[in-house]
Amino acid sequence: MISILIIGNGNVASHLYSALLKAANVRVLKISSRNITEIPKADISIIAVSDDAIATVSSKITNSLVVHTSGSFPMESLQNKTNKGVFYLLQTFSKEKAIDFSKIPICLEAANAKDYLLLEMLAKKLSNHVYSVHSEQRKALHLAAVFVNNFTNHLFTIGKNICESNQLPFEILQPLIEETVDKIKTLSPEKAQTGPAVRNDQKTIENHLDMLHLKQQKIYTTLTKSIQNGN
Amino acid sequence: MISILIIGNGNVASHLYSALLKAANVRVLKISSRNITEIPKADISIIAVSDDAIATVSSKITNSLVVHTSGSFPMESLQNKTNKGVFYLLQTFSKEKAIDFSKIPICLEAANAKDYLLLEMLAKKLSNHVYSVHSEQRKALHLAAVFVNNFTNHLFTIGKNICESNQLPFEILQPLIEETVDKIKTLSPEKAQTGPAVRNDQKTIENHLDMLHLKQQKIYTTLTKSIQNGN
Repeated sequence: MISILIIGNGNVASHLYSALLKAANVRVLKISSRNITEIPKADISIIAVSDDAIATVSSKITNSLVVHTSGSFPMESLQNKTNKGVFYLLQTFSKEKAIDFSKIPICLEAANAKDYLLLEMLAKKLSNHVYSVHSEQRKALHLAAVFVNNFTNHLFTIGKNICESNQLPFEILQPLIEETVDKIKTLSPEKAQTGPAVRNDQKTIENHLDMLHLKQQKIYTTLTKSIQNGN
Repeated sequence: MISILIIGNGNVASHLYSALLKAANVRVLKISSRNITEIPKADISIIAVSDDAIATVSSKITNSLVVHTSGSFPMESLQNKTNKGVFYLLQTFSKEKAIDFSKIPICLEAANAKDYLLLEMLAKKLSNHVYSVHSEQRKALHLAAVFVNNFTNHLFTIGKNICESNQLPFEILQPLIEETVDKIKTLSPEKAQTGPAVRNDQKTIENHLDMLHLKQQKIYTTLTKSIQNGN
């Protein structure tokens, strides 16, 4: 039996708590970061709070192994005097949307091999995709996630706005969006690239720019140039 | 029995031909656009060639109803003297990847109601998602498709490059990419937006910019500003 303490109230804390409740040979407790005067003992204490609160929260924990779940903060941002590590879930969590934990990449880091093995043992109870990722790599992953998740989602918003300005339902784009993602399972995105930019179809590009307002034009031009010049 | 002639050799022509071969009460024939001296008769002639060839190819067809499959060209770009229409498949086609036609949005336009009904009858043999879309709307759809397909795919390429520069496999981003798309089935993309831009987390934004080369910085800044200012 391994004992886990989760500190936090956000989406990561809640989803992780639910997942660990179902894991075998795990005892899990979750507390709020607001009221941490008496901190229960645990084999692994997982701090799942906003990045800015990691230092303060960790400084109050005396348990043997303390990890955070942040993609962008290094392991050293933990201020506990005991052992440190990172337990980063590379996924986007929404409040009311259940998620299949077995597919979530879990990126681990620890200051020593023994702690790493403990984290790995825990991670493998949750997911089939466990990676050893050091702080620099994790920062890069977090950055890549901004491109493939945050920015991609924003392009979907623009697509939706274009549809709605033309009395078309956004659902009409859904099959295309799904195929865009499905394609890169078998084809690298470089090879899957299509469209006026990669064809250098200047006439279509000009027609498209004419249909966009200034801010959208800037996105269109920037991405078109990047497609044309490689990256 | 309805007779269909497809003119073209590309992905759209090939996929459409395969799909129509399986449709009930349809006789379909496909010819190359290179050799169109003797054009077989058909109830609907579907020109699935590159945009620039539509005018020339259509000018040689005397069949009763001639349609093209282009997203960006208006119906009037057809140069046949007979009836005109559009049969636009809103999907990205790859040579060797089979696709479920029943989910493809088919966007129809015709100069008269009788022709529209004929196109609709054909489209419904292939797909459950048939839309009446006039030329201006279709141009907008094609533009929206560039954002949600071409540009999104390019962001995936950047994500892949960031992974590979840091000795990480691109597969590690796949679950996040899938969830990004899965989320907008139940949540509008505006509401699904997360990340440093929408949180206005200036410190993370600066850290990210430090990790990017100039061209990627431009994309990062342009999309971050657009997320922050609405669109």
